[in-house]
Order: sequence, then structure tokens, then C-alpha cells
Amino acid sequence: MTNNYIIALDAMGGDFGPSVYIPAAANALDKQKDLEFLIYGDKKIVRPLLDQHEKLKKHSIFHHTDITISSHDKPSKALRHGKDSSMRLAIEAVRDGQAHGIVSAGNTGALMVMSKLILKSLPGISRPAIASVMPTQNGEVVMLDLGANLVCDAEILVQFALLGAVYAKVVQGVATPSVGLLNVGTEEMKGHDEIRAAAEVLSTVKFPGRYHGFIEGDDITKGTVDVVVTDGFTGNVALKTAEGVAKLTKHFLTEAFKSSPLAIMGYLLSMGAMKKMKDQVDPRKYNGGMFLGVNGVCVKSHGSSDALGTENAILVAADLIRNDFNTQVAEEIEKLMGQESFVEAVGV
Amino acid sequence: MTNNYIIALDAMGGDFGPSVYIPAAANALDKQKDLEFLIYGDKKIVRPLLDQHEKLKKHSIFHHTDITISSHDKPSKALRHGKDSSMRLAIEAVRDGQAHGIVSAGNTGALMVMSKLILKSLPGISRPAIASVMPTQNGEVVMLDLGANLVCDAEILVQFALLGAVYAKVVQGVATPSVGLLNVGTEEMKGHDEIRAAAEVLSTVKFPGRYHGFIEGDDITKGTVDVVVTDGFTGNVALKTAEGVAKLTKHFLTEAFKSSPLAIMGYLLSMGAMKKMKDQVDPRKYNGGMFLGVNGVCVKSHGSSDALGTENAILVAADLIRNDFNTQVAEEIEKLMGQESFVEAVGV
Repeated sequence: MTNNYIIALDAMGGDFGPSVYIPAAANALDKQKDLEFLIYGDKKIVRPLLDQHEKLKKHSIFHHTDITISSHDKPSKALRHGKDSSMRLAIEAVRDGQAHGIVSAGNTGALMVMSKLILKSLPGISRPAIASVMPTQNGEVVMLDLGANLVCDAEILVQFALLGAVYAKVVQGVATPSVGLLNVGTEEMKGHDEIRAAAEVLSTVKFPGRYHGFIEGDDITKGTVDVVVTDGFTGNVALKTAEGVAKLTKHFLTEAFKSSPLAIMGYLLSMGAMKKMKDQVDPRKYNGGMFLGVNGVCVKSHGSSDALGTENAILVAADLIRNDFNTQVAEEIEKLMGQESFVEAVGV
Repeated sequence: MTNNYIIALDAMGGDFGPSVYIPAAANALDKQKDLEFLIYGDKKIVRPLLDQHEKLKKHSIFHHTDITISSHDKPSKALRHGKDSSMRLAIEAVRDGQAHGIVSAGNTGALMVMSKLILKSLPGISRPAIASVMPTQNGEVVMLDLGANLVCDAEILVQFALLGAVYAKVVQGVATPSVGLLNVGTEEMKGHDEIRAAAEVLSTVKFPGRYHGFIEGDDITKGTVDVVVTDGFTGNVALKTAEGVAKLTKHFLTEAFKSSPLAIMGYLLSMGAMKKMKDQVDPRKYNGGMFLGVNGVCVKSHGSSDALGTENAILVAADLIRNDFNTQVAEEIEKLMGQESFVEAVGV
């Protein structure tokens, strides 16, 4: 191995395991020559696949393990019995400095609990969050938390704002990212105590973004802000509701195009444009739930991801590593905690 | 006036006021001959419009008022200063038995606070909820709460389940409506305390529906259940996120159809089918937020609704009145409160 960026792959995670991981890693390597991989999985499945990808084989080290954490296991069980699992070994590689980050499509709860336990949170971060990038009418938005913390107080929401802003700035190149707090209205008096308290803190402290104010559900895709901050319960429901509506629209659109001979002809003529649109909102392009705030890059790929989606999750991890995201967060959180208005507000 | 169904209209509410209310009421009357209206608004605007609709004029009584509650007023201010407002007079007409229900496109917060204060909640209902019907892949779903109660304990969520189930049964004709609790996963251990406690109660009590279990955001539009129950914060964010994604898709679809001469031709050929699809998900068809649990039918029309959307809100109110929704709820809530397992669980 060289001084390249090294990603540990829990190749047994997700519905398809190594059959999508190995081609995904090979494709990622074709795009970014400075990547290397530590691959954890069952040799019976992984080795034959690696043999088909000579270049990846040369740029990776394979570690056999026949223990896999099931997607149905409770995190506590995964912790107790997953000692030599592909997921745990991959996380430990990051802890031990053998890899710069990990990508897994395995059990989300187990991955979060294990990565928090083994890698710990970044200094100053109380609770890591799951963040993801989504398409909007004028670009992209990063949203967090998507399910790691169901109940969040003001301090935690402010930390999410910082994590999201650093991501938008450092990885997406937004000079001064605007940050919105997801609420049921935009007026100051709206929402519950935690969110109003977070709004007050964000209005006074300096952080690597600009506090926009409260936003509503439809602002997420409108592109009103660069970063959407919310608790993990609301964020998870919003994300999945969005996925559901996208599927519903696809369903109605397919029905419409099949509804008459004229419509079928119309579809044939506009097929190229439809494909372009499909590509624009392709969920695989947005695959990769980032565990921001963990002391080590950790990216969760969707369990049902194919090779293209998995490749994207790998590139998301590579982006975080390459841009030294965690170092930047550590610096910014230290600056935040040094501000009197923050200390007073959150009472730390 | 006769023994028909009488709807009180706060004709001054919403962005367009009487200019959409009067034609909307006239069209509703064309469809349902047993409707009559009490119209509250400014005579300078309403009278000339009424003169254009002879039939409506014959089937309605007009009350002049020049006080309107602004959409920006805080509910508390609306209560103090809205004594002779069109909204308040319309609600009082329901209280005094002059009308069977009210429709308003005015300030949601003011309408909820006033209707709760003047009409009260149905006996046994702690907190009325805002409910709405949404399209799914295989029909329709009713979802509540959409924003009236940001924080809800188990007892309140169970009452929402009852309200939604009675609606699906009585108004939509679903024999045994299935009810899902919106959560971040379907496993029993998922979610926060309130929702898990509500799940336990719903699993044991008898109510006019069948408890399906936890559902996730994408289940709303998948048609997994007939009734989606959630707290008002999550419900509001989910609803608006859904609206946002629908707009985003429309945006991308329009862009795609304009992207090349071939795509434009494709659009022209499939225009009929596209229109049918647009009609299927037309938000105006789903306009009408029902304040379920208020002792009197109360329907909120969207502030930016046109005449078609407003007509739908009127028909939603007519449906609730015609099917005697509130009497059915009162009977069912009494049955629920008589069950030992309910009393034990919620500690009433």
C-alpha cells in the first residue's frame, strides 16, 4: 500500500454484498486513481470477484472473515456477537490507522453504534448525525439528521448546523453555506422549545455558515438553503416521504405514458429527455449516508444499492477524506465552544 | 332556508377571498342540490359577485362584516380583536345551530384556536387534529395530525387513530380501515416513547379500524394503510416535503420536455395523458384540511386555493356533515373509553 486514500469496505453488508461492492470499488478506482481498499468479507465470494478485477486486486488488501452482521440484528446483539464481523473489522481498521474511512451497506443501527463505540465522536460533538445530499430545483442540499438521534436538544441541533455547514463549505465548495432549521412555519414563534432555542443560538454565534432561519418541508427541494438541520425522527420521515412521492410520481408517469397509443409515441420521442430527467434525480447518485461527527469517515450505503449506488457511496467517503472534513470540524467546533454566547446559551 | 345541509363560509379568508368563494359555492351547489350557505364577508365585494350567481343567491343568506382576520395575525390577537370578523361569525353560526359546518381559507392558527374555543372539542377528545386526504398508488390515504399539535402523547395519538378510522369508514366507505403509526422503522423497538406506547394501546383496544403497526415515510404514498397517524410536527413536515418533491418533479419534467425539439414533439403527443396524470395528483382535488375532533364540522381551505380547490373544501365539509361524522366519533370514543385496556394504558 502507498500513501493514497485508503477505504475499508464491509463487503458483506447490504442485500447484494460483494457482487456489488467489488465492481463498485473497481469503478471508483477507475475514476480516482489515488484510492486503495481494505476489503472485508467471505473469501468464497470475494476472491472469485476480485479475480475479475485485476487493477482493484492490485490496489486492495483482502481480509477474510465469515461473520456477517444481519440487517435484522439489534445493534446490541451486533455489538456482542459481531467481534470478527466484516463490519467491525472494517471500523477497527479506521481506528488503527490502516484505513482513512469505511463504507458499509450493512445494518444502519449496528454501524452507528459500533462506529461511535470504536471510533468515538469528534471532540466537542455530543452525537454524530446521519447526513445526505439531495437534489433541489437549483442544485443540491445537505440534510441532517436522518435518523441517528430521534430527540435532539438545542445544543445538538447547533452542532448539526456546524457539521452541515462545514460539509457544504469544505466538500461542496459553498463559500458561506446558508443553514435552515426545519419547522412547521417560518415565523419566530413557531415550533417546539428545542428548535426555538437552537434558532436563538444560531442567530448569535459565529460558525462556518449563515443562519437563514426556519424553513418548511417544501423548502428542502426548493433550494432555499444549503443545509437543512432537523432531529433524526423528522429527518428520517421527511427523507422517506420524499422517496415515496418520487416513486408515486414515477408510477403515475409510467401509467400516463402507457395510457394511449399517442402517449406511447410521445414517450418514444421524449425518451432521451426522460432518461436525462431520470438521471438527474437518480437516487443512486445521492446514495451515501454520512455519519458526520464520528472521529473517522464512515459512510452508509443503502442496503438495496447496486454497483452504481455503491460506487457513489465510496466516492462520498473519498470526498470526506480528501477534504480532511474531520480536521475542519474539530477546528470549527473548538472555535464555537470558545464563544461566550454559545457557552451561555447551552450551559456547558 | 330549508332543512338542507347548511355551510357557513368565511368568504374573506385566503389570498383571493370572495372572488373564489362565491363561484366555488355556486359550483358546489350545482353538484349537490341539498346545500345551502351562510356567507360572511364585505358587502362591497360579495354582493356584486352574488348577483352573478342567481341560484346561489337563492340558496344562501349573506351577512355583512367588514372585519377580516389577517393571515399574519397571531391567534391570540385574532381572538382578542376578531369579535365581528367573518371567521368568528361563521364559527358562531355553527355553535348556534344556524349552520352545520364552516369552511375558511383564513389563518390556520386563528381558525383552530377559535373553533376549539367556540365549538369546543367533542366529548372525550383531548385535542382536535388537522387531517387531509392524499393520493397513493392504489387510492387514497387520510393523514393526521398535520400541524395542530406539535407534541402528542400516546393517548392523543390513539384518539387520532380513532378519528382517522371513523373518517375512512364513514366518509370513504372503507369497511375496516387499517391504521399505521408513522415512525422511523417498522420494528417494535423503533421510535420514541410516545409512539411505542400508542402502538401498545392500539394493539389491544377495539376501535373502528385495524391497527397495522408502524409505517415509514414512503408508506404514506405506497398505500400501505388507510389512515396515517402522527404528531403535528412530523405530519406537517411530511406533508410539505411531499408538496416540495411534487413541485421538484414537475420542474424537472417541464425542463425535460423543453430540452429538445424531439422532446417537445413527444410532449405534444402525450399531452392528453400528461393532463390526466396532472389531474390525478392535482392538489386542488385534495384541498380541505379537516379539523377532526372539533364539535362542529370545520374545514380549512388552502390560502392560495382557486375556485376549484375551494369547491373541493366545501364538498369535504358537506361529506362530513352528510355522514354525520361527529356523532359517529362521539359514539366510538365513548366505546373506547369504556374499555379497561384503554383506561389502564392511558391512566385516565
